Parts: sequence; C-alpha cells; structure tokens
Amino acid sequence: MKPEIRTDVAIIGAGSAGLYAMREVRQAGRSFVLIDHGPLGTTCARVGCMPSKVALHAGRLWAARKEIAGVDGLDALSLDTARLWAALREQRDQFASRPEKAARSMAGDFLLEGPARFREAGVLEVSLGENVQIVRAGAVVIATGSRPVVPAWLATVAERTLTTEQLFELPVLPKRVGVLGLGAIGLEMGLALSRLGVEVIGADVANTVAGIVDPVIGERAVGRFMREITIWLGREVSVSTSGDEVLMCSGERVARVDLLLAALGRRPNVDGLNLAAAGIEVDGRGLPKFDPATMQIGALPVFIAGDATGDRPLMHEAADEGAIAGYNAARSDITRFRRKVPLGMAFSDPDVAAVGARLDQLDAQSIVIGSAGGDSNGRARILGGEDSLLRVYADARDGKLLGAAMVATGGEHIAHLLAWAIQRGETAQSLLQLPFYHPVVEELLQTALKEIAEMFSDGLPVGLVRT
Amino acid sequence: MKPEIRTDVAIIGAGSAGLYAMREVRQAGRSFVLIDHGPLGTTCARVGCMPSKVALHAGRLWAARKEIAGVDGLDALSLDTARLWAALREQRDQFASRPEKAARSMAGDFLLEGPARFREAGVLEVSLGENVQIVRAGAVVIATGSRPVVPAWLATVAERTLTTEQLFELPVLPKRVGVLGLGAIGLEMGLALSRLGVEVIGADVANTVAGIVDPVIGERAVGRFMREITIWLGREVSVSTSGDEVLMCSGERVARVDLLLAALGRRPNVDGLNLAAAGIEVDGRGLPKFDPATMQIGALPVFIAGDATGDRPLMHEAADEGAIAGYNAARSDITRFRRKVPLGMAFSDPDVAAVGARLDQLDAQSIVIGSAGGDSNGRARILGGEDSLLRVYADARDGKLLGAAMVATGGEHIAHLLAWAIQRGETAQSLLQLPFYHPVVEELLQTALKEIAEMFSDGLPVGLVRT
Repeated sequence: MKPEIRTDVAIIGAGSAGLYAMREVRQAGRSFVLIDHGPLGTTCARVGCMPSKVALHAGRLWAARKEIAGVDGLDALSLDTARLWAALREQRDQFASRPEKAARSMAGDFLLEGPARFREAGVLEVSLGENVQIVRAGAVVIATGSRPVVPAWLATVAERTLTTEQLFELPVLPKRVGVLGLGAIGLEMGLALSRLGVEVIGADVANTVAGIVDPVIGERAVGRFMREITIWLGREVSVSTSGDEVLMCSGERVARVDLLLAALGRRPNVDGLNLAAAGIEVDGRGLPKFDPATMQIGALPVFIAGDATGDRPLMHEAADEGAIAGYNAARSDITRFRRKVPLGMAFSDPDVAAVGARLDQLDAQSIVIGSAGGDSNGRARILGGEDSLLRVYADARDGKLLGAAMVATGGEHIAHLLAWAIQRGETAQSLLQLPFYHPVVEELLQTALKEIAEMFSDGLPVGLVRT
Repeated sequence: MKPEIRTDVAIIGAGSAGLYAMREVRQAGRSFVLIDHGPLGTTCARVGCMPSKVALHAGRLWAARKEIAGVDGLDALSLDTARLWAALREQRDQFASRPEKAARSMAGDFLLEGPARFREAGVLEVSLGENVQIVRAGAVVIATGSRPVVPAWLATVAERTLTTEQLFELPVLPKRVGVLGLGAIGLEMGLALSRLGVEVIGADVANTVAGIVDPVIGERAVGRFMREITIWLGREVSVSTSGDEVLMCSGERVARVDLLLAALGRRPNVDGLNLAAAGIEVDGRGLPKFDPATMQIGALPVFIAGDATGDRPLMHEAADEGAIAGYNAARSDITRFRRKVPLGMAFSDPDVAAVGARLDQLDAQSIVIGSAGGDSNGRARILGGEDSLLRVYADARDGKLLGAAMVATGGEHIAHLLAWAIQRGETAQSLLQLPFYHPVVEELLQTALKEIAEMFSDGLPVGLVRT
C-alpha cells in the first residue's frame, strides 16, 4: 500500500473541463492531483469536435468539385479514402497532443494515471496497476467526461457497429453507412461521409435533425439534407446482420449497409465512481444533482464539470464549468457565477444552430418572429446557400431578442452575433444600429431583424439614431 | 421644351444610395423624381461587390482541388474560363436586375433616364435624348456614384487596360494579368484571377495591400498573398506595349502580361454636375463639402450620399447615407444622425479587415494590443488559415476596445463581432463574458482579448462574472 496523498483538490479527468479546473486551482496556489485513466487528450480533440471538423472540411472541398462552372475531366477524378482518413488521423493526433502535453507539463508529478473511485466524499482510491493510491483531498472535481451510448439492441450487429471512438480509425471508408441518430454528431458525420462519397442512410426516432425544436427550421433542414443523405425520421429502426451486410428496417423502409455508426447520444462517465460512498445524491438517470452556478454537488466538497454533468455537452460550457468548479474547489467560500446564453450548433454546412430560448420554451402569444431566407441574401446565393432559413424570436412588447433557430450557410457566425446580442439584452431595433457589411451572410440576420423592427418603428430610417 | 417638373425631391442616381434615399422620401409622403443616365443596376451588383464575390468563390473552389489528401486524377482536370465567366455574368445579371426593377417599379413615371446637371441649387436640367427636361425641386440628393480612375499614364496601353467595368465582360480569361493597385478591389480580383489559373503580378506604390495601416498585419498579409501572386510594392510602375504584350517595369523588376487591370481607385461622379451653378463649395479634389451626420452640403437644400461623396465607398455606408439624405431632403428640419463604427474589408480569404480606429489614429502609449495567430486556432488550421493574424487595440486604462486589424480566415465574421463590440463600448474583459463556441475562427478573437484582459484581471476566472 502506497502512502496516502493529501492534497487540497483532486481533479478526476484530464479532459477540457479538468484542465480548466486545474488552471484555477493552480492560480489559487492550492495543491492538487490530476487523475486520468487515459488515454490523455480531450474528447473534443481525440474523437469529437476536431476530427469531425477535419472530415467535414474535406467533404466540403471534395463536393465542391461539382459546383464550379466550366470544369472538364471530373470523371477521371477519384478519392482514396484510405489516404484521406490517414491524413485526418495525423491532423487529429496533432490536436490531441496539445491537451496531453498540457496535462503532463502542468500537473507534472501530480498526474496519476489510473481510474478513480470514491471511498468517502473527500477520499479517492486510484488504481495504479497493482497498487491502489489513496488520495485524501479537501475537495474533489469530477470531470470524467462521457462515452457514446451503445444500446443493447445493437448487440447482434456489434461487429459492424462503430461509434465516433472507432470511426476515425477505419483503414478505409465503407461504401454504405447507416447512421443511427441524427443529432448534431450523427448529422455532421453522416454529411461528411456522404460528401466523401459514402452512401448514407440516417435514421432517428425523433422528427427532426440536430435537435432543432423549431418546426419550420426543422422542416427546412430535413429538406435540405435529404438532397445529400437518405433520412428516415419518426420511427424506430431495427437492425440485423445479413451475410456481410447490415439490414436496416424502419416500417416499410429497408436498406442494406456495410457499417452502422451509432450516434445515439453520450452517457456521463459517473457510473464507476462509487458516488454513493461519497454521499452524492443522484437523479433518475444516476447523475449527480448539482448547482450550475457553482458546479457544487449538494453541500459536499465535491464539484462536477463538463460532459460528466449530462447537462451541456459543449466544449465552451465545459471550459466554464471546469473553471467554476476549480475556482470553488480551491476556496472555502462558494461563489455563484452567471452562465452564458445557450448556443448550440451542428457544423453541417448549412449549419444548424439554436441560440437562447427555444421556441417551445416561449409563449407563442408573447413573441414575434422575424425570418429571412437565403434566396434574399446575395452572398448566400453565391455560396450555394439559397435555401438557408433564419427565424429570430423577440418579445412582442418591445422587440427584445429572446432566441433564434436557423439552418444557414455561415450559420455558425450568425449564431455568435445572436448569442451575444441576446446576452446583452439587445432589441431588433437596437441591433440594426450596428454595421452589417455587404455582401455577407450576416445580412440574413439584418433582414430578419427588420421584419421585427418594423413593428416598433420610431419613424427614423431603420438602424439610424439621432446623435 | 418640355414643361418643367416641380417636385419635392430630385434624386440624381438610382444606385444603392439613391434607392435608399427614394425609400425615405416616399415614406415621408413627398413627391420625387429619380434621375439616372443608365445603365440601371447598382455599381455593387453590376461591377462591384457581387460579381467579385462570384469570382472569388469560384476561385476558392477551383483552388481547393489541391487541398484534399488522397485525390487522384488532378492532371486530367481543366477549367474552361469562357464557360466560367459566362456563368458569372449570368449570376451577375440576376443580381443587377433586382435594383433595376426596384428603381422602375418604385419610381414608375417619376424615373427620368438621362444625365442631370445643376442650373441652380434647386433646379436641374436633365437631357432626355434631344430634349432637356427642367426639374425644379425643393431639395436635391446627389447619389451619382463613382467610376474607376484611369490615369493619363495608362493612355499608351489603353487597348490592353481594363477596369472592373470591363473585367467581367472578357470572353475568356487571359494567361497573365498585371494588376495596378492592390487596394481591396485590386487584391480581391488579383487573387480571384490567380486562383482561376491566371498568372498575376500585382503592383502598388504603397507598401501595403488592401489599405491596411497596421504594419504587422500588412506584413503578414503581403507574405501570405505572395504565395499566390507576385507582389511589387513601394515603387511606381511603368507600362508600355511590346507587340501583343504589356511590359510592366518597377525598378529592376520586369514582367510581361497580356492585360492590365487598373484598380487605382474610384472617382466620384460629380464633375459633370455643374456644381458651381448650385453654389456648392468643393474641396481640393473638387468634391462637395458636406456634413456626414446630415449629408447636407453647406446650408443648401442639396444632399449627397454614397460613392459620390468620395468618403466611405462601401455599400452599407451608402445605404445609411442615402437614407439620411432622403430623410432630410424630405423635411424642413435637418436631423443629425450617428454614423456607424468604421468597418472595411477585402474578401481575400484570408480576409483583410480593419475595424474602428486605425493604428495610426491611436497614441501608441495609450493603448495595449492583444494579438492571436491562426496557428493557435484549431479551426483556422483545419481551414488552411494557420497564418492568420489578428491585432486588437484597446485603451490601456480600462481595456475598452478601440480598433482592430486582421488578415484572417473568416475575418469577415470576426470583423463584425469587433465592430459591434466597439460600437457598444465593450472592453476586452466584458466581451469575454459572451459565448465563443468551439471550434470556430471566432476563438481567434477570444485569444487576443484574453491577452488584453489579463492586464485587468479581477481574480475571477476569465469571462466569468458573479451572479
């Protein structure tokens, strides 16, 4: 038995949230240990945001060959997906090496590479090979991330089922892929694969893609993406093996594919932590109850951050949560922090994005909706985004911006402007006072705002105010 | 002699500024005439923003073929620029038909198609074929736009010199083009042509491109674009014909090209207006003196807007100026309006952009500069923008944002965020409280802001505030 380690803060997980927590603990001058069972490197960099964006970019470039007038010789062009995917892994490895290096260099000797579980609220057991290391900490930060859900009904096709943990390791891309789940991850990867020449059938029990709640945007998005992939919505899918193939069935629809990509959500990695021993209260899903303003679990000296919460599985939220958890874990007084305006997107190009309040969180009688279509936006038309659609929700009393949903070329950029505007309490009228260059996709927002602002006109030209 | 027309407002020019002016005059319920010598359709749509963006987009897509790992058969690929340019014109015509239709449908019988000149401040002569139409107006709006400068020293090579008025009419793209002037227009078109396979030599007497004043950004931009086009800076260029070629010389540098593109600036179309007859005071360049808050010329019932001012030759400024001029021309009281934060860019991909105060307008001792390079931004690296560079200028006392310059992939989007933040009086610290998604090029701004915010730390985690 190794001697106990006594430290101010123990951080379980060296991913995005854990590294942000570590930074705050160091900043506060507290001692800490960082515990990770490996592999080091964040979910984002290893299997999430980064390799998916590499794949999406490659898909976009490859698809672009057909979008240029006057090109001859296209038939002779081919894509070797083995080389492409190898190049993707090389770039991915560069991304993943950064957080790994950060963990090793910042934690140094205080990095314990093994799985941890609670013995008590402030006491952890860390398995280091044959040994068990006891860590007695003043506070603990749980930043253990999440893993893809692979439900039991996929067991019969397990050999032909991938998650994003394996997708980027494929030696070559298959001819046909079935994507189960069309949330942001399933939609992104389905489109990337399709643009790289894979035949894709995407299915979801929900009636929308990328989690879009606004039915008008959802319908537009589905219509747009059906031009690239087959989409089955609103029904359960059953799968079975048939020789070397996988049979996908949904109602009367049948498809044969070579592989399945399970994109059915991610589960927080908290089931192996022995939460009960720490006196941690959990909800119906087995997830700790915590306060999003402090990241504290109950009144315990235990904090949680990032995907482990099951709350906002987004890198920029994980960064904030890690910082809040680390800040509070390093101090005796608990500070409450303001969280940012909700912002979620799929980089599906056209991007699907939702900002602020969702349509189903608003009272239809109390809001006005301004909308703008890509056919009215010159730049969007040039970029092939004429079927973009943006809907902005504003308070019917004063035009104050509440939320928005869109499927739009350059939507990721429009979504940032909207998130900032909503967090700042801008109205449609006030936002039009700010410059919109020309010709930019941001003018889509200008058009939608004008529709709202007209209802609150002060008689002055739109967007202009007296000095 | 036709009978005089008596009207409340005469608007000379049916371009962007003129159409915005007309809208305000109609809104105020005043009578008006809209005068344009043709062709109808705005500079932006006919020969400016729109066809240039079509060309840049095509160039980007065509250049992308070499940026995908694993592609075979590239040698067999070719681009027929005759078909490409014809497709560009088709798209351009669609863009140009919109403002033309707007002018005809909104002005109706009050559209006079001929050149106008002043007889007195409120009296215009409009030549309509053989006839002269006298228009007696309560107020006049000058929105006559601008034309490319073609200096006298180009007379000897006139047959081989184009401006953007002719560029898009070429039946096929030449092999080699010399671009004279590397402001935003010259840089954009030089890069578009180069990406479409034309060998481009760009020259400017200035030591920068796209008018960038910040020397660090200027140097980075020049270094980046030299990878695509030959760039000669800081010296006069002489040109002469030599058989079927044009010889370009600058110091010891010599190049032979097939055509020259003169991108040496644009001159306001006010020289034919007989300004003196209206009692209009002009500056050393022969341009009317006006108040940018009212667009009024002196105390006359004459207003000016858009490129005709020689002040801010940008579509979104022309829209504001047209609206201000029209609003004031339609009323007896003059209203002063606040103008927007300066925002200028070249869509050069990486975009060159300047926002707010320029570096040479700031006192070096009173500011702090935050910077961020594309190599630190994951998304920029994926998009090939690792040599992006952003510099943000803030007040050294409090971190208040004053201006920025950049050469950056997605710079057009970053520039909008910055322009809005500057107009709203945000500091680096306050701006970090707003969400930055991941992985986005906007995080380049986040990185630059953090460098500034560190100097004003309140001890809380960056970007987080107490509830």
